[in-house]
Amino acid sequence: MAHIDLGVDETRFPGINGPLEFRPETAKPLSELAEVLLRGPHTLTAGERELIAAYVSGLNECRFCSSAHSAFAAAQLDAGMTLVEQVRADLDSAPVSDKLRALLRIAGAVQQDGRKVTTAMVDTARAAGATDLEIHDTVLIAAAFCMYNRYVDGLGTLAPDNPQRYADAATRLVEHGYL
Amino acid sequence: MAHIDLGVDETRFPGINGPLEFRPETAKPLSELAEVLLRGPHTLTAGERELIAAYVSGLNECRFCSSAHSAFAAAQLDAGMTLVEQVRADLDSAPVSDKLRALLRIAGAVQQDGRKVTTAMVDTARAAGATDLEIHDTVLIAAAFCMYNRYVDGLGTLAPDNPQRYADAATRLVEHGYL
Repeated sequence: MAHIDLGVDETRFPGINGPLEFRPETAKPLSELAEVLLRGPHTLTAGERELIAAYVSGLNECRFCSSAHSAFAAAQLDAGMTLVEQVRADLDSAPVSDKLRALLRIAGAVQQDGRKVTTAMVDTARAAGATDLEIHDTVLIAAAFCMYNRYVDGLGTLAPDNPQRYADAATRLVEHGYL
Repeated sequence: MAHIDLGVDETRFPGINGPLEFRPETAKPLSELAEVLLRGPHTLTAGERELIAAYVSGLNECRFCSSAHSAFAAAQLDAGMTLVEQVRADLDSAPVSDKLRALLRIAGAVQQDGRKVTTAMVDTARAAGATDLEIHDTVLIAAAFCMYNRYVDGLGTLAPDNPQRYADAATRLVEHGYL
């Protein structure tokens, strides 16, 4: 049970959904930020951007967010959950492009501390073809999930155990988005 | 110099201002979130909420954000920068109310990891008079600054040395807000 009374049935509104219902004034910009970053027009696919979100949420050990965004990534990547699990288990050996691997390394640095991002990491991403916008959005996706993860866990919200709940949420997300 | 070309003179647009100019689509929800959390109608004063932002930014050692939000808090608290410095130096002995101290302890836990927030911390805050909304917003302010701090530092943006720059920004902020 969450640390505060969210005013909803948490089994129906697990994870971030309870706090979003509790405080619509903050839900609006939080949802808009996710929509722009993860689903807006982009040179990175929605699946690649959800993979960055899932990777960072995994590093933060946020069970709800890592389960949800792994499912959202899997639903939008040709290689599905197999690839998501490979990236989360061992980024060095996962079968992703050099560009995506370099961006995920930047995301991993941001998860620890923004100051861990080095010029060498950025140069590697750029040499692999990453644009300034892709680097910017990778940093902001990683930073944003350091927020969402802490929001969800800091309020002690419920994370369902059943993987089907996250797969169902992925179906709705792909169809309707975050707004 | 920032890791990417932000397309602005960084000495005129230091810290988060450069990335906000670079990507207006994400600047909109990022600014709206700050406005609702730090300046919207509330039972915590704007100064108290900026103090939470300054405290978390200090723990994250984000020079730009901690300087800026310390100045923003000081400009809106009767006890000014003296109190901000006391809180940042030693929360236990700082002359704040029991409620604000308990909320700042929750914010400090969120800065480390959402899972560090305990039922005992929340009970202490509630016993000192904190409402569910105040606890919610404290968690989200702390989580949001774990994002803003990583955004600013992950892109390697410029942090001015001159304290007058932050004091001038505080004057503009109090007058015009984040939007």
